[in-house]
Amino acid sequence: MTTTAQHRPTSALLITDVRLRDGSQVDVSIADGRIAAIGAGLPREPGVTLEDGAGALLLPGFVEGHTHLDKTNWGMRWYRNEVGPKLTDRIENERRWRAGSGHDAGAQSLALARAFLQAGTTRLRTHVDIDTDAGLRHLEGVLATRDTLRDVLDMQIVAFPQSGLLGRAGTDALLDCALSAGADVLGALDPALIDGDPVASLDVTFGLAERHHKPIDIHLHEPGEIGAFTLGLLLDRVAALGMQGQVVVSHAFCLGALPERERDALLERLADLRVALLTTAPSSTLVPPLKTCLEKGVTLFGGNDGIRDTWTPYGSPDMLERAMLIAMRYGLRRDDDLALAFDCVSSTAARACGFTDYGLHAGARADLVLVDADTLAHALVARPPRKLVVANGQTVARHGAAPESLN
Amino acid sequence: MTTTAQHRPTSALLITDVRLRDGSQVDVSIADGRIAAIGAGLPREPGVTLEDGAGALLLPGFVEGHTHLDKTNWGMRWYRNEVGPKLTDRIENERRWRAGSGHDAGAQSLALARAFLQAGTTRLRTHVDIDTDAGLRHLEGVLATRDTLRDVLDMQIVAFPQSGLLGRAGTDALLDCALSAGADVLGALDPALIDGDPVASLDVTFGLAERHHKPIDIHLHEPGEIGAFTLGLLLDRVAALGMQGQVVVSHAFCLGALPERERDALLERLADLRVALLTTAPSSTLVPPLKTCLEKGVTLFGGNDGIRDTWTPYGSPDMLERAMLIAMRYGLRRDDDLALAFDCVSSTAARACGFTDYGLHAGARADLVLVDADTLAHALVARPPRKLVVANGQTVARHGAAPESLN
Ligand SMILES: [Zn+2]
Ligand SMILES: [Zn+2]
Repeated sequence: MTTTAQHRPTSALLITDVRLRDGSQVDVSIADGRIAAIGAGLPREPGVTLEDGAGALLLPGFVEGHTHLDKTNWGMRWYRNEVGPKLTDRIENERRWRAGSGHDAGAQSLALARAFLQAGTTRLRTHVDIDTDAGLRHLEGVLATRDTLRDVLDMQIVAFPQSGLLGRAGTDALLDCALSAGADVLGALDPALIDGDPVASLDVTFGLAERHHKPIDIHLHEPGEIGAFTLGLLLDRVAALGMQGQVVVSHAFCLGALPERERDALLERLADLRVALLTTAPSSTLVPPLKTCLEKGVTLFGGNDGIRDTWTPYGSPDMLERAMLIAMRYGLRRDDDLALAFDCVSSTAARACGFTDYGLHAGARADLVLVDADTLAHALVARPPRKLVVANGQTVARHGAAPESLN
Repeated sequence: MTTTAQHRPTSALLITDVRLRDGSQVDVSIADGRIAAIGAGLPREPGVTLEDGAGALLLPGFVEGHTHLDKTNWGMRWYRNEVGPKLTDRIENERRWRAGSGHDAGAQSLALARAFLQAGTTRLRTHVDIDTDAGLRHLEGVLATRDTLRDVLDMQIVAFPQSGLLGRAGTDALLDCALSAGADVLGALDPALIDGDPVASLDVTFGLAERHHKPIDIHLHEPGEIGAFTLGLLLDRVAALGMQGQVVVSHAFCLGALPERERDALLERLADLRVALLTTAPSSTLVPPLKTCLEKGVTLFGGNDGIRDTWTPYGSPDMLERAMLIAMRYGLRRDDDLALAFDCVSSTAARACGFTDYGLHAGARADLVLVDADTLAHALVARPPRKLVVANGQTVARHGAAPESLN
């Protein structure tokens, strides 16, 4: 890993007059990148930088649970999407486009990661394409981005076989290299409908993860009964290998389509094995049921998936927008329900991904967002510009823009 | 109708260097509130105000096809939603809240209508509550708003029996008064599931509309088979009374749930009778199928429904956001498909509601929006601040804010 970042000393900071979710007014003191204290009327020590919160709402730094920084066209000229409707159309189209366009995964991931930071995201899990065409090129680009932003953005990298694992010989060896080279998590993709052999595909995946002692985050788009079948095979392996708490299933559309009894049996196994679910809450597809997951003890968290790439024109580095879309997708209207959607892109996502020292309490990493909003629900639907973003104790955005020093 | 607005003279204007949807670069000349010409290299006449478009994308003013200006809490302190899940819970809650809160439909509708204008909406259909508690109070407030903004915002008012038509005696007489007092369209609500008597309810509605020679816009939330039954009764009356092209069915969730053959038979009748459908494209509910509607010749257009009221925390006066949500709901990804979603909040909505002289052509009302975006699809997903909004030839917003004179 190359080291290009300047290590910035973090000075002590006191943010006064902010409001918590419950409406109480507090100050926050920060030292050495940590929250030192949160409470009413904290003392103003000499030498400490003062920041007047002016009654803003205080939120923890947001967590992006699933994106693809390496694919994005963020900040580039608009990509005109003329792609066919099938998953394989999109995979083939992207590989062709990538070969012809000179797309630079390093520069693009850095541009989007900075946009995430400015909008208040301080922890982020990104899936990075590994295939026999791109090799480890995308991983290298994203590793450089991680290094550039390492003082402020806590980034997990998933080595993701976007073109499938079994179909193109040598992909498993590339994933092996990626896990040695700095990827934190092993990715996977539709073991039945892309790889054509769910048992063999899952066995290779779990074998690699076990050898590297790395967690797994699998894209499972497979619908209905076939998705349920694959999910069952996956859960068998989590149990057999003792990987409880180490596996995320992204999308899991099948859990939105199954009959209730079959669905609930799978949810109970997911809860037992502490396998978490990630949803983008797509409005055009079935999704795992949020409230039933909560009742059954299944962790469901949120993310964007790709942002403005050859797959999709949508997505935004603003996790308040994602929280709003999650809330809308689940038909949530009450303020207490909207708070559940915010949890999906904050505390729940941090727990599911294993981001540590997270939250608004003394000792946690000082990742804070201030917005002008009456309440948390208001912040979700209004998505106001970020008044202040502090990441690991450093100010990374003010009034929606990055300070000079970070650009 | 009271007249409080200042009549502002509209001077001639030449907007240079803007791009159409097809990418061609043009100028737009405006005189007397109309588009005089659109084309490359228009002559700069003396005395004409010049506006440099600087390569911005030129869009027609947006059309909000269905909102409730009178209900909104826009600009007020956040309304904490603790409402129960049923439709009747929401109706009862709102009536209680309205009685206790001193809500001012005039002031609130004006605040939200101004926000619509600033975000580029120049034509708008709003449903206004008429019931035996509120009487015509909301209508009076919204009529005042229409009058205040009459030089710039083309507003249609629907007299809407939010508490039902048959259940509270005297509602029909109030609707009768509302149609005499300035409402343009007669509203209605779930003739079977709210009124309990679809035949009687529809007969009263169509009788009132016929007597006043006014079109109808009905809220039809009724699901599946009961919604199909009510819709069939409605279509019988459109045919019997010769009201082709005069009726809108808002929501029509039932058309997202029916078996294909039954659905298609209804769509064919809708097309024959030129009955249009309005959708907000809710992500948590079934919706009429956009592409099938297009194939069958059924007009489907878009709107927000309520915005930040006691019913819903969501909604935005930015119709580009509504277009994005429509595109997402229908799983659209290609640029040509995203353009269909934009049509839902522009040309299609204008046609369905009967807003005349609409569009980007010589002779049309000069309702224009300029945004910094590479393409139309880009404008939808990025929703950039409005660089310039011209309504009926007058500049009503610049860089996302209203000029002093309009505030
Ligand atoms: Zn993904
Ligand atoms: Zn409505």
